[in-house]
Amino acid sequence: MTNKQNLKRKKIAILATNGFEQSELEQPKQMLTEQGAQVDVLSIDDQKEITGWDTDNWGKKVSVDAQVSSVTPEDYDAVVLPGGQINPDILRTNEEAISFIKKAYATPRIKAIAAICHGPWLLVESALANNSKVTSFPSIKTDMINAGATWQDQEVVHDGKLVTSRNPNDIPAFVEKISELVA
Amino acid sequence: MTNKQNLKRKKIAILATNGFEQSELEQPKQMLTEQGAQVDVLSIDDQKEITGWDTDNWGKKVSVDAQVSSVTPEDYDAVVLPGGQINPDILRTNEEAISFIKKAYATPRIKAIAAICHGPWLLVESALANNSKVTSFPSIKTDMINAGATWQDQEVVHDGKLVTSRNPNDIPAFVEKISELVA
Repeated sequence: MTNKQNLKRKKIAILATNGFEQSELEQPKQMLTEQGAQVDVLSIDDQKEITGWDTDNWGKKVSVDAQVSSVTPEDYDAVVLPGGQINPDILRTNEEAISFIKKAYATPRIKAIAAICHGPWLLVESALANNSKVTSFPSIKTDMINAGATWQDQEVVHDGKLVTSRNPNDIPAFVEKISELVA
Repeated sequence: MTNKQNLKRKKIAILATNGFEQSELEQPKQMLTEQGAQVDVLSIDDQKEITGWDTDNWGKKVSVDAQVSSVTPEDYDAVVLPGGQINPDILRTNEEAISFIKKAYATPRIKAIAAICHGPWLLVESALANNSKVTSFPSIKTDMINAGATWQDQEVVHDGKLVTSRNPNDIPAFVEKISELVA
């Protein structure tokens, strides 16, 4: 990161469940925390911790700070949606998770809804991909286009409140764009 | 299965890679073989065996009979596409796999292209979902509809050559419909 921002007094929600790509939750959390933000991990199903996916197998557990159903997007400045093949596939069938993302988009305080890798599936499910410029992991490119998005092969794509990236290698550019929008 | 068919001299391809839902490959393979069909497991990336996904973790290995790039759909009467969250997500980025499914649909000998659970993602990627009646695992319902399909909540949906089912509980109805079309 070339562009460290002062994120003191900023609050960022990371919404995830089991099967999140380990680096795509942990690295943004660490980088945003180091810039002064309070970062809360939100999840579903009353889970106290969720298990990551590390490249090709189950990874480490991460503590959950709050249930997505118990918080409001008005308390946050940004929402981060990590990928992994399993995590967004579970979240997209959870009404509370999808409702939170939809409300976050409509909340003035929220400056970024940032999804990486397979995370942009949640933008499809929340009907936010339509008429937006996005990127994603290549396997879901067709789903993004079918949802009405314009898909671009770039490390980070920014369109309004939406920030999207392709894979873990893009995390520095992904976090830099989130920081810039939130600061 | 109430409706056992005579599938002697029929050949059925199951196309899969790592992360296929164990039961969705093994049970159709066994049931179709018991009815007399020759069932070949096709895969990609020169793999000699592929590893299943058993509900919530990696499962057992299954032998690969041929690479999808080394066979032609003209040698088969049906193609079966198992689910799992990981397997179709990998296959949809593989040009040889998608090309095989597209060619299979256009091949007169092929009577069924049958996809279960997350397998119907491959019908999206092969542009076969458009204007078709389908079902799938509920998490990918939005992707099926965005691809132009009409989504139905039934144990098996049959539309032309396409046969789709929702989850492992639907396997008996799924296999019965494949058998009926191939026999």
